[in-house]
Amino acid sequence: MTIPISVLQQFALGALRQCGVPAEPAAVAADVLVTTDTWGVFTHGTKNLRGYVRRLRAGGLRPEAQPTLVKEGPAWVQMDGNSGLAMPTSVEAMRRAIAKAKAVGIGFAGVRNSCHFGAAGYYAKLAADEGLIGVAMANDIPSVTVPGARGAVLGSNPLAFAVPHEAGRPILMDMATSTVAGGKIYAAATLGKLIPEGWLTDEAGLPTTDPNKLVQGGALTPMAGHKGYGIALLIEMLAGVLTGAATTWQVVSWSMHDPRLPTGHGAAFLALDIETLTDHSEFAERLRHVVQGIRSTPLAVGSERILVPGDLEWERRAAALAGGIEFPEDVLISLRGLADDLGVPPIG
Amino acid sequence: MTIPISVLQQFALGALRQCGVPAEPAAVAADVLVTTDTWGVFTHGTKNLRGYVRRLRAGGLRPEAQPTLVKEGPAWVQMDGNSGLAMPTSVEAMRRAIAKAKAVGIGFAGVRNSCHFGAAGYYAKLAADEGLIGVAMANDIPSVTVPGARGAVLGSNPLAFAVPHEAGRPILMDMATSTVAGGKIYAAATLGKLIPEGWLTDEAGLPTTDPNKLVQGGALTPMAGHKGYGIALLIEMLAGVLTGAATTWQVVSWSMHDPRLPTGHGAAFLALDIETLTDHSEFAERLRHVVQGIRSTPLAVGSERILVPGDLEWERRAAALAGGIEFPEDVLISLRGLADDLGVPPIG
Repeated sequence: MTIPISVLQQFALGALRQCGVPAEPAAVAADVLVTTDTWGVFTHGTKNLRGYVRRLRAGGLRPEAQPTLVKEGPAWVQMDGNSGLAMPTSVEAMRRAIAKAKAVGIGFAGVRNSCHFGAAGYYAKLAADEGLIGVAMANDIPSVTVPGARGAVLGSNPLAFAVPHEAGRPILMDMATSTVAGGKIYAAATLGKLIPEGWLTDEAGLPTTDPNKLVQGGALTPMAGHKGYGIALLIEMLAGVLTGAATTWQVVSWSMHDPRLPTGHGAAFLALDIETLTDHSEFAERLRHVVQGIRSTPLAVGSERILVPGDLEWERRAAALAGGIEFPEDVLISLRGLADDLGVPPIG
Repeated sequence: MTIPISVLQQFALGALRQCGVPAEPAAVAADVLVTTDTWGVFTHGTKNLRGYVRRLRAGGLRPEAQPTLVKEGPAWVQMDGNSGLAMPTSVEAMRRAIAKAKAVGIGFAGVRNSCHFGAAGYYAKLAADEGLIGVAMANDIPSVTVPGARGAVLGSNPLAFAVPHEAGRPILMDMATSTVAGGKIYAAATLGKLIPEGWLTDEAGLPTTDPNKLVQGGALTPMAGHKGYGIALLIEMLAGVLTGAATTWQVVSWSMHDPRLPTGHGAAFLALDIETLTDHSEFAERLRHVVQGIRSTPLAVGSERILVPGDLEWERRAAALAGGIEFPEDVLISLRGLADDLGVPPIG
């Protein structure tokens, strides 16, 4: 089932407008989710719209809330999302970080009282589109354990960055700090398959290959063990502690918990202006050298190509813009459910 | 064989002075290396002094070089290490990032024409000592492969951060972006042991458990696969491309290559001033809550404690300050060799 981008965009926009979200933030949020789908990152795209809509209708997300400035300086802002949709808030925060960076070389934006912001890469890319290096991160309710612990300790706190490279195709990386996303574990459970050792711990805090353990007191493992733990903790400190957002177990699940409650997520955005810090064309030439070096490395036996971060996303996006998106069944089920919730015709 | 800290410090200082390094930068470099040893990070402490001394005597490191300012703005500096010792250069760069952050909230310092700077964590900690969040990173000659490639592509580009927490004991994390350090592979090779799958690839780019493959066209694996690759690439862009330093294969090995050549390493330092961006006591209270949450998580079966990054380093340091450092044999061999090179009495 292939859905054209314009149809998906209209559907997402309509859904948010129907919940009382004003035109501009609704358009921004729709663009974040649809862009994410065009990258093939279906876990963070319009699949989640149904959950956001549920929260918008129940009050945990305030449809008309707008982000406000808490405090600012020459190189930074702290913002309050006021429990509105996280996408327009995050776009506004990154835009301010970019403006600060253009003025003084580097800019930081912190956000409190936000919600699940979708794919961190979208916000990092905003900076790259304007010739800056962008970094985006957020905290979340714990789902990942740490070495020596039993059960979840930190969120799968995402980290993304984007760096201007080829026109419209920045280097782009967006990662959760868990070994794998929870979605992969749920998928294995649904299919009755075992998972590789190293992805999950059970209720005793021990490694398990049984995907059902995730909902039985288990927890995801941090990527690269204590290193991923450290990076997730740094993100918690920048996006949560430094911003005044909810931290670890204070965060309310955007998808599982009572939709009348604000979730309290925090986020942090960083922008570095290349033209200020060095010369843009020199930077581009030097980066081209690095990327060509990576691409021209001999292939491993059995390997067909060496990817540079963003390659797959830009290829998938080109295909999606040309021919629409072929969604997996779980996304279609969610989109149909949302249409049903709203009493509008389904799109796929 | 236990060596008192003061003896080690004097030995390191004397070695650098004998090579013509002026008193102040020599003292700084000695403190970086000895502090690293007190943390138990022996791979990056005085063990490497012999290699630095060889370069200082051959000219690849210029004993009297001082770092110079290339360009600066309200929130950033770009510096040139002029092929001097990387430790005093890196301390100077982080101090400038800190000063910028105190003035405008966040500060960035880039460095080109540096060398191997030892443990990144030392520089991150300088920021934490003054109440700021510190981040330090550097590039290096490739030793780590990327998914799909055969052989090394990027350095094991280190990333460290420090965040003020308990007095004198900041949260501190210092990681290479490879799965494990090359030293662990060499150690296994020396002992004739196999290594776990996932650490190393062979000359075909395929996983191997034979540690001897590292010097036979093999390469370390990136931590967490494509995620570690992405983080190492981000570090390469910030510490190498953005600063005008040597990148990937342009970097000369500080330990293996002709010591008459400058190595060209780059580094990047970031500081965020907590008191500017929020209220320091509020930050401290919120961080305490997060850390207590981590420490009070139930233990996994068989686990004795949950570590917060820095715990081990501060415990080892307290023991080292009280009773000296019990070095492993490989460090003692290097220190004795250095004494021999310099014609001074050995200390252990």
